[in-house]
Amino acid sequence: MTVSKRRGEHTVLFETPPRVLSTASIVGDMEGAGPLGHAFDMVLTDDTWGESSWEKAECKMFEQVVRLALTKVNWDTKMLHCLLGGDLLNQIITANYAARQLGVPFLGLYGACSTMAESLLLGSMLVDGGFAHNVACVASSHFSTAERQYRYPLEMGTTSPPTAQRTVTGSGAVLLSAEPAPAQQQGPAVFRNIHIESGTIGKVVDMGISDASNMGAAMAPAACDTIVTHLSDTGRAPSYYDAIITGDLGSFGSEMLQELCMDEGVDIKGRHLDCGNLIFDSSQNVNCGGSGCGCSAVVLSAHLLQLLEKDAWKRILFMATGALMSPSATQQGETIPGIAHAVVLERDA
Amino acid sequence: MTVSKRRGEHTVLFETPPRVLSTASIVGDMEGAGPLGHAFDMVLTDDTWGESSWEKAECKMFEQVVRLALTKVNWDTKMLHCLLGGDLLNQIITANYAARQLGVPFLGLYGACSTMAESLLLGSMLVDGGFAHNVACVASSHFSTAERQYRYPLEMGTTSPPTAQRTVTGSGAVLLSAEPAPAQQQGPAVFRNIHIESGTIGKVVDMGISDASNMGAAMAPAACDTIVTHLSDTGRAPSYYDAIITGDLGSFGSEMLQELCMDEGVDIKGRHLDCGNLIFDSSQNVNCGGSGCGCSAVVLSAHLLQLLEKDAWKRILFMATGALMSPSATQQGETIPGIAHAVVLERDA
Repeated sequence: MTVSKRRGEHTVLFETPPRVLSTASIVGDMEGAGPLGHAFDMVLTDDTWGESSWEKAECKMFEQVVRLALTKVNWDTKMLHCLLGGDLLNQIITANYAARQLGVPFLGLYGACSTMAESLLLGSMLVDGGFAHNVACVASSHFSTAERQYRYPLEMGTTSPPTAQRTVTGSGAVLLSAEPAPAQQQGPAVFRNIHIESGTIGKVVDMGISDASNMGAAMAPAACDTIVTHLSDTGRAPSYYDAIITGDLGSFGSEMLQELCMDEGVDIKGRHLDCGNLIFDSSQNVNCGGSGCGCSAVVLSAHLLQLLEKDAWKRILFMATGALMSPSATQQGETIPGIAHAVVLERDA
Repeated sequence: MTVSKRRGEHTVLFETPPRVLSTASIVGDMEGAGPLGHAFDMVLTDDTWGESSWEKAECKMFEQVVRLALTKVNWDTKMLHCLLGGDLLNQIITANYAARQLGVPFLGLYGACSTMAESLLLGSMLVDGGFAHNVACVASSHFSTAERQYRYPLEMGTTSPPTAQRTVTGSGAVLLSAEPAPAQQQGPAVFRNIHIESGTIGKVVDMGISDASNMGAAMAPAACDTIVTHLSDTGRAPSYYDAIITGDLGSFGSEMLQELCMDEGVDIKGRHLDCGNLIFDSSQNVNCGGSGCGCSAVVLSAHLLQLLEKDAWKRILFMATGALMSPSATQQGETIPGIAHAVVLERDA
């Protein structure tokens, strides 16, 4: 057997490209007050969403964002052959408990903030490989659950250093299918023009950053590695894409990525965007921008895919970036490795 | 596009079945003293393996077990197109840091103790789908790292109730490839006769167990659900398999599974085995048996696949079972859901 779908070292090409059918996004109030506030399907005014804990609220967001994406194409959960996703909490409880409520076949992933790209990459392989007809790819994070798990209890009122980023409260879902949406599925919420063309699996890269408040710097080397590998595997130049979009490097990490790429002879400056920079406004007092795997999930679902669908762009390289940090590893003197997975989202010719 | 590889609701059939090339296992001293002690590639006499923490030792086990599986077919890491795996620690640090050392494309998974089956299922899809030629599927756990994360610090000397199980200290790896091992790869360590025929993706099932010392009971309903679904999807009877093998239900959970299956009209009693029952001896004072995602990983690698290779069996249903428990969810009053993924391992006709 020849592996016809492989290109170069890390990149796979989809022969029957999975199609984007619908997306959904649910965010917190601060995300709703940001520049993309109008684009999200639902903005919560209370970040517990009526639940007794932030963790339970995040779980509800994960479950409801999948139901919302299904509703847009008039489907129920029975139409889903697989749910792929994860979150930042220990033992991915958000995804696990949401999957219990949804009752569909479930593959739990952990890629830190790279989870949205990891789920799209694996979901696309399931669809293109013929193993599933319809899949939901999901990622979620929540400011209040992440702070107390990774940093300090919110009640302490700790101030954050200038390189810190704010974990996005948000769940984003993308429905993929082997076939286009049936004609009877009406309405502006149904996507008709986008497929996933290829993807690049990242490897773990560690440049020795050990500061949990400087994740952009921890992730930038992995993002650079994946971009350079992707372009080398495909023989493409950065100009092949209308935009090269990272997940949550924030302002400092984005600068670092552009410089690291330049060192490798790859100039992405004119076309690089970062979801962590897009979601908040500098007036919102978020230091270096947004982070968390919900950040790239909701910006992709509510904003980037809309621009592609409406023909503002022809194709983008979407790359979610993960800082593989863990309080126990950090306490044992370990540095923070990063990983970045990428998918190419393209308008039909 | 028709989804020709799907059978029924949750089961996928591999058209070009991925082949098992080699396996490797590294375990702790207690596992080495058990009934399968002779079968493991390496038995540690010191569960820190010369490292400064148990977590670092587990990471070394994960890395070295992959290198060992590669060595058996005279390969280095460059031959690997993807590493898929996970462990039980927060933010899967074992797998993440091992992947950093190995430097290969990496997809991090979290399925609690179901991880070995999840990685084999996804690894098989990558190979059969043409996205990777060679993949390594890995899972790992460690008694000392798991106890202090999930239960109590070992220094407290807490006693465990009769339904408790002992987390296995062990890392197991299985190398899958699209093609059989080349003829020049000699030696008894190279597998020549086994392929993965199909697999069933599990869903999250919760019957309301909330006792973190009774995981067998939390996982048995999910195992029953996956067995019944698999048999229904494929139209097979339990007698189609020489053995139906669960991951780590232990003695109490195994009894419960057999009864739950009987309630569904499926009699697995004569052919059900559990890795948690196989790995320890009743004289080893382990209550209900072994657990942890390393349990099924090392028993599969060192024992089950050897029996298949040597023609003691023709085909088995291997199903790793995960208790999706998390201290933070339990503290918030949540019950413990379970999940079970399955793959069919078969001798060539």
